[in-house]
Amino acid sequence: MRKNLPVILITNDDGITSPGIRALVEAVKDLGQVIVVAPDSPQSGMGHAITIGTPLRLDRVEVFPGVESWQCSGTPADCVKLAHDKILHAKPDICLSGINHGANHSINVIYSGTMSAAMEAAIEGVPSIGFSSLDYKFDADFTVAKTVVHELASRMLAKEMPEHILLNVNIPVCTPEDFKGMKICRQAYAKWEEDFDRRTDPRGKDYYWMVGKFVNMDKGTETDVEALNQGYASVVPIKIDFTDMKMRDWLREEWSDMS
Amino acid sequence: MRKNLPVILITNDDGITSPGIRALVEAVKDLGQVIVVAPDSPQSGMGHAITIGTPLRLDRVEVFPGVESWQCSGTPADCVKLAHDKILHAKPDICLSGINHGANHSINVIYSGTMSAAMEAAIEGVPSIGFSSLDYKFDADFTVAKTVVHELASRMLAKEMPEHILLNVNIPVCTPEDFKGMKICRQAYAKWEEDFDRRTDPRGKDYYWMVGKFVNMDKGTETDVEALNQGYASVVPIKIDFTDMKMRDWLREEWSDMS
Repeated sequence: MRKNLPVILITNDDGITSPGIRALVEAVKDLGQVIVVAPDSPQSGMGHAITIGTPLRLDRVEVFPGVESWQCSGTPADCVKLAHDKILHAKPDICLSGINHGANHSINVIYSGTMSAAMEAAIEGVPSIGFSSLDYKFDADFTVAKTVVHELASRMLAKEMPEHILLNVNIPVCTPEDFKGMKICRQAYAKWEEDFDRRTDPRGKDYYWMVGKFVNMDKGTETDVEALNQGYASVVPIKIDFTDMKMRDWLREEWSDMS
Repeated sequence: MRKNLPVILITNDDGITSPGIRALVEAVKDLGQVIVVAPDSPQSGMGHAITIGTPLRLDRVEVFPGVESWQCSGTPADCVKLAHDKILHAKPDICLSGINHGANHSINVIYSGTMSAAMEAAIEGVPSIGFSSLDYKFDADFTVAKTVVHELASRMLAKEMPEHILLNVNIPVCTPEDFKGMKICRQAYAKWEEDFDRRTDPRGKDYYWMVGKFVNMDKGTETDVEALNQGYASVVPIKIDFTDMKMRDWLREEWSDMS
Protein backbone atom coordinates (compact mmCIF):
# COMPACT_ATOMS: atom_id res chain seq x y z
CA MET A 1 0.00 0.00 0.00
CA ARG A 2 1.44 3.38 -0.94
CA LYS A 3 1.80 5.81 1.98
CA ASN A 4 -0.40 8.87 2.50
CA LEU A 5 -2.88 8.04 -0.23
CA PRO A 6 -6.35 7.13 1.01
CA VAL A 7 -7.24 3.49 0.45
CA ILE A 8 -10.44 2.97 -1.54
CA LEU A 9 -11.93 -0.52 -1.46
CA ILE A 10 -14.17 -1.24 -4.44
CA THR A 11 -16.60 -4.09 -4.88
CA ASN A 12 -19.96 -4.79 -6.52
CA ASP A 13 -22.57 -7.47 -7.07
CA ASP A 14 -22.64 -7.73 -10.87
CA GLY A 15 -19.19 -9.35 -10.84
CA ILE A 16 -15.68 -8.08 -11.48
CA THR A 17 -16.08 -8.08 -15.27
CA SER A 18 -19.15 -5.82 -15.40
CA PRO A 19 -18.90 -2.37 -17.03
CA GLY A 20 -20.32 -0.75 -13.89
CA ILE A 21 -17.38 -1.65 -11.65
CA ARG A 22 -14.98 -0.48 -14.37
CA ALA A 23 -16.75 2.90 -14.44
CA LEU A 24 -16.48 3.06 -10.64
CA VAL A 25 -12.72 2.36 -10.71
CA GLU A 26 -12.18 4.96 -13.44
CA ALA A 27 -14.22 7.54 -11.54
CA VAL A 28 -12.07 7.45 -8.39
CA LYS A 29 -8.61 6.27 -9.40
CA ASP A 30 -7.24 9.81 -9.07
CA LEU A 31 -8.47 10.04 -5.47
CA GLY A 32 -6.38 7.35 -3.82
CA GLN A 33 -5.02 3.84 -3.83
CA VAL A 34 -7.77 1.70 -5.31
CA ILE A 35 -8.10 -2.01 -4.43
CA VAL A 36 -10.80 -4.12 -6.08
CA VAL A 37 -12.19 -7.26 -4.43
CA ALA A 38 -15.30 -8.36 -6.26
CA PRO A 39 -17.36 -11.48 -6.99
CA ASP A 40 -16.19 -13.70 -9.86
CA SER A 41 -19.79 -13.99 -11.11
CA PRO A 42 -23.04 -12.00 -10.92
CA GLN A 43 -24.64 -11.92 -7.45
CA SER A 44 -27.73 -9.79 -8.05
CA GLY A 45 -30.51 -10.27 -5.53
CA MET A 46 -28.14 -11.82 -2.99
CA GLY A 47 -29.25 -9.42 -0.24
CA HIS A 48 -26.93 -9.64 2.72
CA ALA A 49 -26.01 -13.27 2.09
CA ILE A 50 -22.74 -14.58 3.47
CA THR A 51 -21.09 -17.90 2.69
CA ILE A 52 -20.73 -20.20 5.65
CA GLY A 53 -21.51 -23.66 4.30
CA THR A 54 -18.89 -23.76 1.54
CA PRO A 55 -15.30 -22.55 1.39
CA LEU A 56 -14.36 -19.40 -0.50
CA ARG A 57 -11.84 -18.90 -3.29
CA LEU A 58 -9.89 -15.66 -3.67
CA ASP A 59 -7.66 -15.07 -6.70
CA ARG A 60 -5.47 -12.19 -7.82
CA VAL A 61 -6.54 -11.10 -11.31
CA GLU A 62 -5.58 -8.53 -13.94
CA VAL A 63 -8.71 -6.63 -14.89
CA PHE A 64 -8.02 -2.93 -14.36
CA PRO A 65 -4.68 -1.52 -15.53
CA GLY A 66 -2.50 -0.55 -12.58
CA VAL A 67 -5.13 -1.48 -9.96
CA GLU A 68 -4.67 -4.38 -7.53
CA SER A 69 -7.64 -6.65 -8.17
CA TRP A 70 -8.98 -9.86 -6.66
CA GLN A 71 -11.95 -12.01 -7.56
CA CYS A 72 -13.82 -14.02 -4.97
CA SER A 73 -16.21 -16.95 -5.29
CA GLY A 74 -18.50 -15.51 -2.60
CA THR A 75 -21.13 -12.83 -2.18
CA PRO A 76 -20.54 -9.06 -2.06
CA ALA A 77 -20.56 -9.19 1.77
CA ASP A 78 -17.97 -12.01 1.66
CA CYS A 79 -15.75 -9.83 -0.58
CA VAL A 80 -15.70 -7.02 1.97
CA LYS A 81 -14.99 -9.40 4.84
CA LEU A 82 -12.18 -11.14 2.94
CA ALA A 83 -10.69 -7.85 1.72
CA HIS A 84 -10.46 -6.61 5.27
CA ASP A 85 -9.00 -9.77 6.76
CA LYS A 86 -6.81 -11.22 4.01
CA ILE A 87 -5.81 -8.39 1.66
CA LEU A 88 -5.84 -4.98 3.36
CA HIS A 89 -5.13 -6.18 6.92
CA ALA A 90 -6.55 -2.80 7.95
CA LYS A 91 -9.61 -0.68 7.39
CA PRO A 92 -9.78 1.10 4.03
CA ASP A 93 -10.60 4.83 4.18
CA ILE A 94 -13.79 4.31 2.25
CA CYS A 95 -15.63 1.46 0.56
CA LEU A 96 -17.51 1.97 -2.70
CA SER A 97 -19.84 -0.61 -4.20
CA GLY A 98 -21.26 -0.69 -7.72
CA ILE A 99 -21.99 0.88 -10.05
CA ASN A 100 -24.96 -1.46 -10.19
CA HIS A 101 -26.68 -2.02 -13.51
CA GLY A 102 -30.22 -1.32 -12.28
CA ALA A 103 -32.00 0.63 -9.53
CA ASN A 104 -31.60 -0.03 -5.81
CA HIS A 105 -33.86 2.70 -4.47
CA SER A 106 -36.69 2.36 -1.89
CA ILE A 107 -37.30 -1.18 -0.62
CA ASN A 108 -34.66 -2.60 -2.98
CA VAL A 109 -31.98 -1.74 -0.44
CA ILE A 110 -33.06 -4.98 1.28
CA TYR A 111 -32.53 -7.22 -1.75
CA SER A 112 -29.45 -5.48 -3.06
CA GLY A 113 -26.07 -7.16 -3.09
CA THR A 114 -24.56 -3.77 -3.99
CA MET A 115 -25.88 -2.28 -0.77
CA SER A 116 -25.04 -5.34 1.32
CA ALA A 117 -21.35 -4.88 0.50
CA ALA A 118 -21.53 -1.22 1.53
CA MET A 119 -23.48 -2.20 4.64
CA GLU A 120 -20.86 -4.77 5.61
CA ALA A 121 -18.17 -2.09 5.38
CA ALA A 122 -20.28 0.28 7.49
CA ILE A 123 -20.64 -2.42 10.16
CA GLU A 124 -16.83 -2.48 10.22
CA GLY A 125 -16.84 1.29 10.76
CA VAL A 126 -15.80 2.19 7.20
CA PRO A 127 -17.68 5.09 5.55
CA SER A 128 -19.24 3.58 2.48
CA ILE A 129 -21.48 4.18 -0.49
CA GLY A 130 -23.44 1.91 -2.80
CA PHE A 131 -24.00 3.30 -6.31
CA SER A 132 -26.70 2.11 -8.69
CA SER A 133 -27.69 3.38 -12.09
CA LEU A 134 -31.29 3.15 -13.23
CA ASP A 135 -29.84 2.12 -16.58
CA TYR A 136 -29.69 -1.68 -16.25
CA LYS A 137 -28.29 -2.34 -19.71
CA PHE A 138 -24.84 -3.86 -20.27
CA ASP A 139 -23.81 -0.85 -22.36
CA ALA A 140 -25.26 1.69 -19.92
CA ASP A 141 -23.82 5.22 -20.21
CA PHE A 142 -22.07 5.95 -16.89
CA THR A 143 -21.06 9.54 -17.71
CA VAL A 144 -23.40 11.14 -15.16
CA ALA A 145 -22.86 8.33 -12.67
CA LYS A 146 -19.10 8.87 -12.75
CA THR A 147 -19.43 12.55 -11.89
CA VAL A 148 -21.71 11.62 -8.97
CA VAL A 149 -19.23 9.00 -7.76
CA HIS A 150 -16.29 11.38 -7.98
CA GLU A 151 -18.11 14.15 -6.18
CA LEU A 152 -19.37 12.01 -3.30
CA ALA A 153 -16.13 10.07 -2.85
CA SER A 154 -14.20 13.36 -2.76
CA ARG A 155 -16.52 14.76 -0.10
CA MET A 156 -16.25 11.61 2.01
CA LEU A 157 -12.45 11.66 1.80
CA ALA A 158 -12.07 15.40 2.35
CA LYS A 159 -13.75 15.45 5.72
CA GLU A 160 -13.90 13.31 8.84
CA MET A 161 -17.24 11.50 8.42
CA PRO A 162 -19.35 9.76 11.06
CA GLU A 163 -18.06 6.22 11.53
CA HIS A 164 -21.15 4.43 10.30
CA ILE A 165 -22.06 6.66 7.40
CA LEU A 166 -23.56 4.55 4.68
CA LEU A 167 -25.20 6.05 1.60
CA ASN A 168 -27.51 4.48 -0.93
CA VAL A 169 -27.05 6.46 -4.14
CA ASN A 170 -29.14 5.98 -7.27
CA ILE A 171 -28.49 7.76 -10.54
CA PRO A 172 -31.20 8.54 -13.11
CA VAL A 173 -30.89 7.79 -16.82
CA CYS A 174 -30.07 11.19 -18.32
CA THR A 175 -27.49 13.19 -20.20
CA PRO A 176 -25.05 15.44 -18.33
CA GLU A 177 -27.06 18.41 -19.65
CA ASP A 178 -30.34 17.15 -18.21
CA PHE A 179 -28.89 16.04 -14.87
CA LYS A 180 -30.34 18.09 -12.00
CA GLY A 181 -27.76 17.26 -9.31
CA MET A 182 -27.97 15.27 -6.09
CA LYS A 183 -30.70 15.26 -3.45
CA ILE A 184 -30.60 13.95 0.12
CA CYS A 185 -33.72 11.81 0.57
CA ARG A 186 -35.45 9.14 2.60
CA GLN A 187 -36.28 5.61 1.41
CA ALA A 188 -39.65 5.53 -0.38
CA TYR A 189 -42.26 3.11 0.95
CA ALA A 190 -42.66 0.75 -1.96
CA LYS A 191 -42.76 -2.96 -2.73
CA TRP A 192 -42.69 -5.54 -5.48
CA GLU A 193 -45.94 -7.17 -6.40
CA GLU A 194 -44.70 -10.56 -7.35
CA ASP A 195 -46.13 -12.81 -9.86
CA PHE A 196 -44.50 -16.10 -10.74
CA ASP A 197 -44.36 -17.19 -14.31
CA ARG A 198 -45.17 -20.91 -14.24
CA ARG A 199 -43.64 -23.07 -16.98
CA THR A 200 -43.35 -26.77 -17.59
CA ASP A 201 -39.97 -28.40 -18.17
CA PRO A 202 -39.35 -31.03 -20.91
CA ARG A 203 -40.05 -33.73 -18.29
CA GLY A 204 -43.50 -32.33 -17.48
CA LYS A 205 -42.59 -30.81 -14.13
CA ASP A 206 -43.52 -27.22 -13.20
CA TYR A 207 -40.99 -24.53 -12.46
CA TYR A 208 -41.35 -20.81 -11.72
CA TRP A 209 -39.60 -17.60 -12.73
CA MET A 210 -39.97 -14.65 -10.40
CA VAL A 211 -41.39 -11.64 -12.17
CA GLY A 212 -42.64 -8.57 -10.40
CA LYS A 213 -44.18 -5.17 -10.73
CA PHE A 214 -42.72 -2.32 -8.70
CA VAL A 215 -45.35 -0.44 -6.74
CA ASN A 216 -44.55 2.89 -5.08
CA MET A 217 -47.07 3.49 -2.32
CA ASP A 218 -45.35 6.61 -1.04
CA LYS A 219 -46.86 9.98 -1.93
CA GLY A 220 -44.14 11.91 -0.07
CA THR A 221 -42.04 14.47 -1.90
CA GLU A 222 -38.81 13.76 -0.02
CA THR A 223 -38.30 10.18 -1.21
CA ASP A 224 -35.59 8.72 -3.40
CA VAL A 225 -38.12 7.59 -6.00
CA GLU A 226 -39.49 11.12 -6.30
CA ALA A 227 -36.02 12.67 -6.59
CA LEU A 228 -35.12 10.20 -9.36
CA ASN A 229 -38.37 10.94 -11.18
CA GLN A 230 -37.38 14.59 -11.18
CA GLY A 231 -33.95 13.86 -12.65
CA TYR A 232 -31.88 14.04 -9.47
CA ALA A 233 -29.49 11.43 -8.13
CA SER A 234 -30.92 10.26 -4.79
CA VAL A 235 -28.71 10.06 -1.70
CA VAL A 236 -30.25 8.11 1.19
CA PRO A 237 -28.32 7.59 4.44
CA ILE A 238 -28.95 4.06 5.73
CA LYS A 239 -29.04 2.78 9.32
CA ILE A 240 -27.63 -0.52 10.45
CA ASP A 241 -29.73 -0.51 13.61
CA PHE A 242 -33.05 -1.91 12.40
CA THR A 243 -34.92 -1.44 15.68
CA ASP A 244 -38.27 0.23 15.21
CA MET A 245 -38.17 2.48 18.28
CA LYS A 246 -41.73 3.78 17.81
CA MET A 247 -43.04 0.23 17.61
CA ARG A 248 -40.97 -0.67 20.67
CA ASP A 249 -42.64 2.08 22.68
CA TRP A 250 -46.07 1.07 21.39
CA LEU A 251 -45.45 -2.57 22.35
CA ARG A 252 -44.27 -1.57 25.81
CA GLU A 253 -47.67 0.04 26.33
CA GLU A 254 -49.64 -2.78 24.72
CA TRP A 255 -47.76 -5.64 26.32
CA SER A 256 -46.82 -3.89 29.52
CA ASP A 257 -46.51 -7.23 31.32
CA MET A 258 -43.34 -8.04 29.36
CA SER A 259 -41.57 -4.71 29.13
CA MET B 1 -58.62 -23.22 3.39
CA ARG B 2 -61.06 -23.80 6.24
CA LYS B 3 -63.28 -20.83 7.01
CA ASN B 4 -62.96 -18.60 10.08
CA LEU B 5 -59.68 -20.03 11.26
CA PRO B 6 -56.74 -17.66 11.02
CA VAL B 7 -54.20 -18.67 8.39
CA ILE B 8 -50.67 -19.08 9.75
CA LEU B 9 -47.89 -19.22 7.17
CA ILE B 10 -44.77 -20.96 8.46
CA THR B 11 -41.32 -20.97 6.95
CA ASN B 12 -37.68 -21.08 8.04
CA ASP B 13 -34.11 -21.05 6.77
CA ASP B 14 -32.78 -24.35 8.13
CA GLY B 15 -34.99 -26.26 5.69
CA ILE B 16 -38.31 -28.07 5.97
CA THR B 17 -36.81 -31.16 7.65
CA SER B 18 -35.19 -29.30 10.58
CA PRO B 19 -36.44 -29.94 14.13
CA GLY B 20 -36.93 -26.20 14.66
CA ILE B 21 -39.69 -25.81 12.08
CA ARG B 22 -41.39 -28.93 13.46
CA ALA B 23 -41.39 -27.34 16.93
CA LEU B 24 -42.86 -24.15 15.42
CA VAL B 25 -45.67 -26.07 13.70
CA GLU B 26 -46.45 -27.99 16.89
CA ALA B 27 -46.47 -24.80 18.95
CA VAL B 28 -49.20 -23.08 16.92
CA LYS B 29 -51.26 -25.80 15.27
CA ASP B 30 -54.10 -25.24 17.76
CA LEU B 31 -54.27 -21.54 16.83
CA GLY B 32 -55.32 -21.75 13.21
CA GLN B 33 -54.93 -23.24 9.78
CA VAL B 34 -51.19 -23.84 9.39
CA ILE B 35 -49.54 -23.87 5.95
CA VAL B 36 -45.83 -24.61 5.65
CA VAL B 37 -43.76 -23.37 2.68
CA ALA B 38 -40.08 -23.84 3.45
CA PRO B 39 -36.75 -24.34 1.69
CA ASP B 40 -35.87 -27.88 0.63
CA SER B 41 -32.32 -27.42 1.98
CA PRO B 42 -30.54 -25.31 4.61
CA GLN B 43 -30.29 -21.59 3.72
CA SER B 44 -28.46 -20.19 6.74
CA GLY B 45 -26.67 -16.89 6.15
CA MET B 46 -28.75 -16.17 3.05
CA GLY B 47 -29.72 -12.71 4.31
CA HIS B 48 -32.48 -11.26 2.19
CA ALA B 49 -31.43 -13.14 -0.94
CA ILE B 50 -34.02 -13.74 -3.65
CA THR B 51 -33.72 -15.99 -6.66
CA ILE B 52 -33.88 -14.18 -9.97
CA GLY B 53 -31.27 -15.88 -12.14
CA THR B 54 -32.58 -19.45 -11.87
CA PRO B 55 -36.11 -20.86 -11.87
CA LEU B 56 -37.73 -22.11 -8.68
CA ARG B 57 -39.23 -25.49 -7.87
CA LEU B 58 -42.19 -25.87 -5.53
CA ASP B 59 -43.39 -29.32 -4.45
CA ARG B 60 -46.17 -30.52 -2.17
CA VAL B 61 -44.69 -32.78 0.53
CA GLU B 62 -45.83 -34.81 3.52
CA VAL B 63 -43.76 -33.74 6.50
CA PHE B 64 -46.14 -32.65 9.25
CA PRO B 65 -49.22 -34.80 9.92
CA GLY B 66 -52.39 -32.98 8.87
CA VAL B 67 -50.56 -29.81 7.79
CA GLU B 68 -50.42 -28.67 4.16
CA SER B 69 -46.71 -28.47 3.37
CA TRP B 70 -44.63 -27.38 0.41
CA GLN B 71 -40.90 -27.36 -0.17
CA CYS B 72 -39.20 -24.82 -2.39
CA SER B 73 -35.79 -24.77 -4.05
CA GLY B 74 -35.34 -21.08 -3.22
CA THR B 75 -34.44 -18.86 -0.31
CA PRO B 76 -36.65 -18.06 2.71
CA ALA B 77 -37.75 -14.79 1.02
CA ASP B 78 -38.64 -16.76 -2.13
CA CYS B 79 -40.79 -19.11 -0.03
CA VAL B 80 -42.87 -16.25 1.33
CA LYS B 81 -43.29 -14.70 -2.12
CA LEU B 82 -44.30 -18.03 -3.68
CA ALA B 83 -46.63 -18.91 -0.81
CA HIS B 84 -48.47 -15.66 -1.28
CA ASP B 85 -48.75 -15.83 -5.04
CA LYS B 86 -49.11 -19.53 -5.82
CA ILE B 87 -50.49 -21.28 -2.72
CA LEU B 88 -52.50 -18.96 -0.49
CA HIS B 89 -53.66 -16.51 -3.22
CA ALA B 90 -54.29 -14.14 -0.30
CA LYS B 91 -52.47 -12.70 2.68
CA PRO B 92 -52.09 -15.06 5.65
CA ASP B 93 -53.12 -13.62 9.03
CA ILE B 94 -49.59 -13.97 10.35
CA CYS B 95 -46.28 -15.34 9.16
CA LEU B 96 -43.93 -17.15 11.52
CA SER B 97 -40.36 -18.07 10.63
CA GLY B 98 -38.05 -20.47 12.45
CA ILE B 99 -37.42 -21.76 14.99
CA ASN B 100 -33.84 -21.12 13.92
CA HIS B 101 -31.12 -23.37 15.34
CA GLY B 102 -28.84 -20.55 16.52
CA ALA B 103 -29.05 -16.90 17.60
CA ASN B 104 -30.22 -14.05 15.37
CA HIS B 105 -29.96 -11.20 17.87
CA SER B 106 -28.23 -7.83 17.38
CA ILE B 107 -26.51 -7.34 13.99
CA ASN B 108 -27.38 -10.91 12.95
CA VAL B 109 -30.79 -9.71 11.82
CA ILE B 110 -28.96 -8.56 8.65
CA TYR B 111 -27.48 -11.97 7.82
CA SER B 112 -30.44 -14.04 8.91
CA GLY B 113 -32.54 -16.01 6.45
CA THR B 114 -35.04 -16.58 9.27
CA MET B 115 -35.58 -12.85 9.62
CA SER B 116 -35.56 -12.21 5.87
CA ALA B 117 -38.62 -14.44 5.49
CA ALA B 118 -40.42 -12.55 8.25
CA MET B 119 -39.28 -9.25 6.73
CA GLU B 120 -40.64 -10.26 3.32
CA ALA B 121 -44.03 -10.97 4.89
CA ALA B 122 -43.95 -7.61 6.70
CA ILE B 123 -43.27 -5.84 3.40
CA GLU B 124 -46.47 -7.51 2.16
CA GLY B 125 -48.30 -6.08 5.18
CA VAL B 126 -48.50 -9.37 7.09
CA PRO B 127 -47.70 -9.21 10.84
CA SER B 128 -44.78 -11.54 11.28
CA ILE B 129 -42.24 -12.94 13.71
CA GLY B 130 -38.87 -14.63 13.31
CA PHE B 131 -37.95 -17.02 16.12
CA SER B 132 -34.42 -18.16 16.91
CA SER B 133 -33.12 -20.32 19.70
CA LEU B 134 -29.65 -19.75 21.08
CA ASP B 135 -29.37 -23.54 21.14
CA TYR B 136 -27.91 -24.27 17.69
CA LYS B 137 -27.73 -28.06 18.14
CA PHE B 138 -29.78 -30.47 16.01
CA ASP B 139 -31.34 -31.95 19.16
CA ALA B 140 -32.02 -28.55 20.76
CA ASP B 141 -34.70 -28.52 23.45
CA PHE B 142 -37.52 -26.28 22.18
CA THR B 143 -39.72 -26.52 25.30
CA VAL B 144 -39.25 -22.90 26.33
CA ALA B 145 -39.20 -21.71 22.71
CA LYS B 146 -42.58 -23.34 22.07
CA THR B 147 -44.20 -21.51 24.98
CA VAL B 148 -42.77 -18.21 23.67
CA VAL B 149 -44.06 -18.96 20.17
CA HIS B 150 -47.52 -19.86 21.40
CA GLU B 151 -47.78 -16.78 23.59
CA LEU B 152 -46.64 -14.29 20.94
CA ALA B 153 -48.64 -15.85 18.10
CA SER B 154 -51.75 -15.81 20.31
CA ARG B 155 -51.24 -12.13 21.12
CA MET B 156 -50.71 -11.24 17.47
CA LEU B 157 -53.86 -13.11 16.44
CA ALA B 158 -56.02 -11.85 19.31
CA LYS B 159 -55.65 -8.18 18.46
CA GLU B 160 -55.52 -6.00 15.39
CA MET B 161 -51.78 -5.32 15.03
CA PRO B 162 -50.05 -2.55 13.08
CA GLU B 163 -49.71 -3.63 9.46
CA HIS B 164 -45.95 -3.75 9.38
CA ILE B 165 -45.27 -5.26 12.76
CA LEU B 166 -42.24 -7.48 12.53
CA LEU B 167 -40.59 -9.01 15.58
CA ASN B 168 -37.16 -10.54 15.98
CA VAL B 169 -37.46 -13.00 18.87
CA ASN B 170 -34.54 -14.87 20.39
CA ILE B 171 -34.88 -17.52 23.07
CA PRO B 172 -32.15 -18.32 25.62
CA VAL B 173 -30.95 -21.83 26.41
CA CYS B 174 -32.69 -22.61 29.70
CA THR B 175 -35.18 -24.87 31.42
CA PRO B 176 -38.80 -23.78 31.84
CA GLU B 177 -38.02 -23.27 35.54
CA ASP B 178 -35.14 -20.89 34.85
CA PHE B 179 -36.90 -18.95 32.08
CA LYS B 180 -37.47 -15.32 33.11
CA GLY B 181 -40.09 -14.39 30.49
CA MET B 182 -40.01 -12.01 27.51
CA LYS B 183 -38.53 -8.54 27.26
CA ILE B 184 -39.10 -5.86 24.61
CA CYS B 185 -35.67 -4.62 23.56
CA ARG B 186 -33.65 -2.80 20.96
CA GLN B 187 -31.02 -4.34 18.68
CA ALA B 188 -27.59 -4.39 20.38
CA TYR B 189 -24.74 -2.68 18.56
CA ALA B 190 -22.45 -5.60 17.85
CA LYS B 191 -20.49 -7.17 15.02
CA TRP B 192 -18.55 -10.22 13.93
CA GLU B 193 -14.81 -9.97 13.88
CA GLU B 194 -14.06 -12.20 10.98
CA ASP B 195 -11.08 -14.31 10.52
CA PHE B 196 -10.71 -16.62 7.56
CA ASP B 197 -9.24 -20.03 8.07
CA ARG B 198 -6.91 -20.54 5.08
CA ARG B 199 -6.42 -24.12 3.89
CA THR B 200 -4.83 -25.73 0.86
CA ASP B 201 -6.76 -28.14 -1.32
CA PRO B 202 -5.30 -31.44 -2.64
CA ARG B 203 -4.29 -29.57 -5.82
CA GLY B 204 -2.26 -27.00 -3.89
CA LYS B 205 -4.71 -24.12 -4.25
CA ASP B 206 -5.82 -22.01 -1.27
CA TYR B 207 -9.38 -21.81 -0.03
CA TYR B 208 -10.96 -20.06 2.96
CA TRP B 209 -13.55 -20.90 5.59
CA MET B 210 -15.27 -17.99 7.27
CA VAL B 211 -14.87 -18.10 11.04
CA GLY B 212 -15.75 -15.25 13.33
CA LYS B 213 -15.87 -13.98 16.86
CA PHE B 214 -18.99 -12.16 18.01
CA VAL B 215 -18.20 -8.82 19.64
CA ASN B 216 -20.87 -6.90 21.55
CA MET B 217 -19.83 -3.26 21.70
CA ASP B 218 -23.08 -2.15 23.32
CA LYS B 219 -23.03 -1.42 27.04
CA GLY B 220 -26.73 -0.51 27.11
CA THR B 221 -29.10 -2.38 29.40
CA GLU B 222 -32.07 -2.37 27.03
CA THR B 223 -30.55 -4.53 24.31
CA ASP B 224 -31.53 -7.97 23.10
CA VAL B 225 -28.09 -9.38 23.98
CA GLU B 226 -28.40 -8.13 27.57
CA ALA B 227 -31.94 -9.52 27.96
CA LEU B 228 -30.76 -12.92 26.70
CA ASN B 229 -27.78 -12.86 29.07
CA GLN B 230 -30.24 -12.38 31.92
CA GLY B 231 -32.35 -15.36 30.84
CA TYR B 232 -35.14 -13.49 29.06
CA ALA B 233 -36.39 -14.07 25.53
CA SER B 234 -35.70 -10.87 23.57
CA VAL B 235 -38.43 -9.25 21.46
CA VAL B 236 -37.14 -6.57 19.05
CA PRO B 237 -39.53 -4.77 16.68
CA ILE B 238 -37.80 -4.29 13.31
CA LYS B 239 -38.26 -1.50 10.76
CA ILE B 240 -38.32 -1.98 7.03
CA ASP B 241 -37.51 1.66 6.39
CA PHE B 242 -33.72 1.75 6.70
CA THR B 243 -33.36 5.53 6.31
CA ASP B 244 -31.13 7.03 8.99
CA MET B 245 -33.17 10.19 9.62
CA LYS B 246 -30.60 11.70 12.01
CA MET B 247 -27.87 11.23 9.43
CA ARG B 248 -30.13 12.70 6.78
CA ASP B 249 -30.57 15.86 8.83
CA TRP B 250 -26.83 16.01 9.54
CA LEU B 251 -26.03 15.65 5.82
CA ARG B 252 -28.52 18.35 4.90
CA GLU B 253 -26.52 20.73 7.11
CA GLU B 254 -23.12 19.50 5.94
CA TRP B 255 -23.93 19.31 2.26
CA SER B 256 -26.47 22.09 2.16
CA ASP B 257 -25.81 22.63 -1.55
CA MET B 258 -27.52 19.34 -2.39
CA SER B 259 -30.41 19.21 0.01
